[in-house]
Amino acid sequence: MPVVVQNIERAAADTIDRLARAGVATVHEAQGRRGMLQSHMRPIYPGAQVAGSAVTISAPPGDNWMIHVAIEQLRDGDILVLAPTSPCDNGYFGDLLATSAMARGCRGLVIDAGVRDIRDLTEMGFPVWSKAVSAQGTVKETLGSVNVPIVCAGAFIEAGDIVVADDDGVVVVRRAEAEAVLAAAEERLANEEAKRRRLAAGELGLDIYRMRETLAAKGLKYV
Amino acid sequence: MPVVVQNIERAAADTIDRLARAGVATVHEAQGRRGMLQSHMRPIYPGAQVAGSAVTISAPPGDNWMIHVAIEQLRDGDILVLAPTSPCDNGYFGDLLATSAMARGCRGLVIDAGVRDIRDLTEMGFPVWSKAVSAQGTVKETLGSVNVPIVCAGAFIEAGDIVVADDDGVVVVRRAEAEAVLAAAEERLANEEAKRRRLAAGELGLDIYRMRETLAAKGLKYV
Amino acid sequence: MPVVVQNIERAAADTIDRLARAGVATVHEAQGRRGMLQSHMRPIYPGAQVAGSAVTISAPPGDNWMIHVAIEQLRDGDILVLAPTSPCDNGYFGDLLATSAMARGCRGLVIDAGVRDIRDLTEMGFPVWSKAVSAQGTVKETLGSVNVPIVCAGAFIEAGDIVVADDDGVVVVRRAEAEAVLAAAEERLANEEAKRRRLAAGELGLDIYRMRETLAAKGLKYV
Amino acid sequence: MPVVVQNIERAAADTIDRLARAGVATVHEAQGRRGMLQSHMRPIYPGAQVAGSAVTISAPPGDNWMIHVAIEQLRDGDILVLAPTSPCDNGYFGDLLATSAMARGCRGLVIDAGVRDIRDLTEMGFPVWSKAVSAQGTVKETLGSVNVPIVCAGAFIEAGDIVVADDDGVVVVRRAEAEAVLAAAEERLANEEAKRRRLAAGELGLDIYRMRETLAAKGLKYV
Amino acid sequence: MPVVVQNIERAAADTIDRLARAGVATVHEAQGRRGMLQSHMRPIYPGAQVAGSAVTISAPPGDNWMIHVAIEQLRDGDILVLAPTSPCDNGYFGDLLATSAMARGCRGLVIDAGVRDIRDLTEMGFPVWSKAVSAQGTVKETLGSVNVPIVCAGAFIEAGDIVVADDDGVVVVRRAEAEAVLAAAEERLANEEAKRRRLAAGELGLDIYRMRETLAAKGLKYV
Amino acid sequence: MPVVVQNIERAAADTIDRLARAGVATVHEAQGRRGMLQSHMRPIYPGAQVAGSAVTISAPPGDNWMIHVAIEQLRDGDILVLAPTSPCDNGYFGDLLATSAMARGCRGLVIDAGVRDIRDLTEMGFPVWSKAVSAQGTVKETLGSVNVPIVCAGAFIEAGDIVVADDDGVVVVRRAEAEAVLAAAEERLANEEAKRRRLAAGELGLDIYRMRETLAAKGLKYV
Repeated sequence: MPVVVQNIERAAADTIDRLARAGVATVHEAQGRRGMLQSHMRPIYPGAQVAGSAVTISAPPGDNWMIHVAIEQLRDGDILVLAPTSPCDNGYFGDLLATSAMARGCRGLVIDAGVRDIRDLTEMGFPVWSKAVSAQGTVKETLGSVNVPIVCAGAFIEAGDIVVADDDGVVVVRRAEAEAVLAAAEERLANEEAKRRRLAAGELGLDIYRMRETLAAKGLKYV
Repeated sequence: MPVVVQNIERAAADTIDRLARAGVATVHEAQGRRGMLQSHMRPIYPGAQVAGSAVTISAPPGDNWMIHVAIEQLRDGDILVLAPTSPCDNGYFGDLLATSAMARGCRGLVIDAGVRDIRDLTEMGFPVWSKAVSAQGTVKETLGSVNVPIVCAGAFIEAGDIVVADDDGVVVVRRAEAEAVLAAAEERLANEEAKRRRLAAGELGLDIYRMRETLAAKGLKYV
Repeated sequence: MPVVVQNIERAAADTIDRLARAGVATVHEAQGRRGMLQSHMRPIYPGAQVAGSAVTISAPPGDNWMIHVAIEQLRDGDILVLAPTSPCDNGYFGDLLATSAMARGCRGLVIDAGVRDIRDLTEMGFPVWSKAVSAQGTVKETLGSVNVPIVCAGAFIEAGDIVVADDDGVVVVRRAEAEAVLAAAEERLANEEAKRRRLAAGELGLDIYRMRETLAAKGLKYV
Repeated sequence: MPVVVQNIERAAADTIDRLARAGVATVHEAQGRRGMLQSHMRPIYPGAQVAGSAVTISAPPGDNWMIHVAIEQLRDGDILVLAPTSPCDNGYFGDLLATSAMARGCRGLVIDAGVRDIRDLTEMGFPVWSKAVSAQGTVKETLGSVNVPIVCAGAFIEAGDIVVADDDGVVVVRRAEAEAVLAAAEERLANEEAKRRRLAAGELGLDIYRMRETLAAKGLKYV
Repeated sequence: MPVVVQNIERAAADTIDRLARAGVATVHEAQGRRGMLQSHMRPIYPGAQVAGSAVTISAPPGDNWMIHVAIEQLRDGDILVLAPTSPCDNGYFGDLLATSAMARGCRGLVIDAGVRDIRDLTEMGFPVWSKAVSAQGTVKETLGSVNVPIVCAGAFIEAGDIVVADDDGVVVVRRAEAEAVLAAAEERLANEEAKRRRLAAGELGLDIYRMRETLAAKGLKYV
Repeated sequence: MPVVVQNIERAAADTIDRLARAGVATVHEAQGRRGMLQSHMRPIYPGAQVAGSAVTISAPPGDNWMIHVAIEQLRDGDILVLAPTSPCDNGYFGDLLATSAMARGCRGLVIDAGVRDIRDLTEMGFPVWSKAVSAQGTVKETLGSVNVPIVCAGAFIEAGDIVVADDDGVVVVRRAEAEAVLAAAEERLANEEAKRRRLAAGELGLDIYRMRETLAAKGLKYV
């Protein structure tokens, strides 16, 4: 059963980069509020905002062997996405693996487990979204799989799906939907700019979004 | 049952501002170690220290409609305080709502749920204390209430109570007790300064607070 | 039963300082992946990297009396390590205690509970690794013990053991093993440097560590 | 500040007993989906279904002294309700305290902390809803208060409020609203019986509650 | 986007029933240790052991409207499987819905949220595996989807997949793999019987599975 | 480093059996409120009350190989105690291992991880105290150690220490202290009987333990 899928399809580089610029919250809304990973996935340092094609890893608890295998599958613009087969907070990944991944063009790591060498990774500018920070080491004894479908932090992810990550967390976009989601996201961004100006000037959302009637109809009372 | 209470009483502005300067730990001690919200309430960025009159929101899980309603009730110096009616980590609040709230003089948000657009909020200098950071969006379908008594992160809060928040968390001061708590807090601050100097000079708390006798009386043995 | 052990043995200062420079992840690996405290132990600010001799504290929930007792036992280069006798997130420690501890040469605090006055501690440069940040105050009513063996965040620690802490968490080294662990750690650091250069140049871990054969032997398939 | 309020008002015994028979889910719905304690409050054995007037206890973490004080305040038909001032899972209560409480007519304990002597309590038929089961003992050193307003497991409770508890958890009813809530609950029970028969006969909720039009209007598609 | 998929394919009834008899642990092993839902999914009463075709529900937090929609899609031998779109412990399901589901031939409910009316459900013999027990009610305001792919408690589930549940938890079997997994499970059961007899007679696993050599080769020392 | 310690010392069988009869809460109090494992350790079925000599296992996450090794070390009256080297909820143990352990005289399992085949274990009368119930399987790839000191659920345990477990949880007694703790426990039991009678007759703990004066001296007010 342990398998490495070698040739995965990826979305267009320009689409991916523009999804990164749109950011997590906008992309998530643009695709109908789907695709968020759970909120325990936090960045190891603030300010990073990236998107990339997912190279997925299914790994046993406490065993990081498959990360070495996955790194060979990386292409420029990819993001490693690791889900352990059962809950684990071990530090699967540190500065040596990051050095190797960066040499292959990797843009970051999303891992529903632990990471270590935080200070080095921060200095290298290699962003990680993880469930935990832990120096607890791992072994290399048991096989897993690379580029198979996984569930990571509650989200279903297939190899080649686009992962967008920033300070708000991580969202996944199906590869086949990337163009449509991007279009909706960019429209949304344009739209928000006008609203932001009106709100900053003191107009109320109650009026801009015409909520007063529906609130009253539902039975809201002012006293 | 869904209701918006419109005219709430607030403490004096000067009292509120001086409570902010005293800080959370001191205010909490000054009122007899009461009023702390649970420790999962963390700031989205370090360094903010504020106090304000609570405009309270009771909202259903995954529904941020009432925030729009609450913003209309804000006056200069207020803080929004939201408690979901059951545990929820959705991102109820982002940069557009913050823009609107700031335009009404709001000093921050305390929310026992999630928040998003962290980077924008940080750049805007709009502080938030929350249970989670999450881009997971919400709907506007179900009513809640504004300016009713709520339980937020384990603390009972009424509209117009003073909320003090800094890097140590969030504490609530009953409006009717604000003056007395402030007096006790400022006395405590003055008091601490003298102790700090003695401790910095190497004196021991065991001696300053005369603990040796009571420790021995309780049965502490040195070996 | 409440007891203060006064004369504890400590490792050599030079050994301790070099363990600090090696850092948590390396020291942990060098001693066979043992000794990590659980991953909920997080620093209150990033960037600190210290090691010191443990002055241990076993304290009741919500009672920080024994910290005053422990401070008298501190010598230059020590680290306070507190374990509550049952789970508690109260803020046992703040800026006054830190002032006192620093005056005695203390390098930091490791506490499986809460800490407060975060901003002050950060400005003072007094590092703390804790389970929580909370301003919730404590009492001084019930005895505990100082310099007895404790279990802190899942790790067994005896007074005089060396505690190493950085952004990756906290690891404990048995005092009797300190020299051997240091030697292994420093060898490991030298070793890693060469690997880092090869990985940065694009060589794969699969080849450097000769993993391809064992992966195939275990049954990994490429498709 | 530590105080014991001695003469509290209670609802009518018949009202309380009928609320018990209505059960938690029905009472909770009848009062507008308010008043549930958090879902971590679980019974130590299945099948108990009780209601009683709350004798409230605010106690420090790890200190059960105030339970002895509260027992003197019990009258026939009361329920003890304890909230620690910060999170704690210690076993505050066991078979001796239960013996004493039962001798005073107490119907059960609701405690946002731990309980012990589970087997004895089960044999005695003294029901407890708690956050944890733990034999970890407590001290009697620090005062708390009895019959003051508390927040227990997220719910605000005043002495004399009615607490209803069964296998579904615990709900609190304001004393002043008890009659009205009971009336609504009993109407609801009568109402449900008819629906149950129709559903058992195979009718669909979609039809009984006439949901098809609103679902379609909101945009639900069948494919 | 909200959609109800009406005609789903199901595995053969006999296959499903035999998977139920094999039980969760055996089925899980037989398919290569995949498909377990997370361990927080617990039965509301012990002893139930069922399997059925999944009718999946994706529902907003705190909104159970889609369960009514899903019940119409049930056929004899199905199991309802609900995943909220963000974490929620509300009681989505109680005795009225169970009455309706049973009338349609439903064998149980798997829900990564809360359930209520526990005592009634137990008496009715309607088994539920849930994250929480809670009487906290829900609304019927926001659409979700029925029979779309979901992630429930960390497992990816498509409508028509087979869900097996017993006291050990819940496992999902892909519909297309059902026959193969059943064959492997039944072989495994036969196999275990022989081993059980040898172990009961005092033979050691070390000898039966010939582990002594590999343990020694890996470096295990006896002292 | 992986090691099996073969000849461990055990306490007298009679002492162990009498500790079992005293029960967890009493033993824990008798040794000064020390030695409780954390409250997440729960029995898989109610009513078991056992004590035995600990055969300890330190095992990697998701790997149960060492249980086979440990079973060979069991003698009549022992209890297996397993701590994973990092948090894990996998089902390390099921009915086959229980069959083997029972054949060697083992009285139960204490495991800070998961267990499976709950129904079989219940029918066999093999008690388990665990952190989780999970059918998620484990591998046999990585060594651990047997009969070395471990930290299990927050308690330090050495091989041959006495583990006492019942519905209230698990407590460990140092082997060298077993006689003294037993004496104190039995005295305590005798003592409690008299108190129970007085409390059942309606006397108050306030009077029996003469608390009224100290409460008043500490400042408790009755209003």
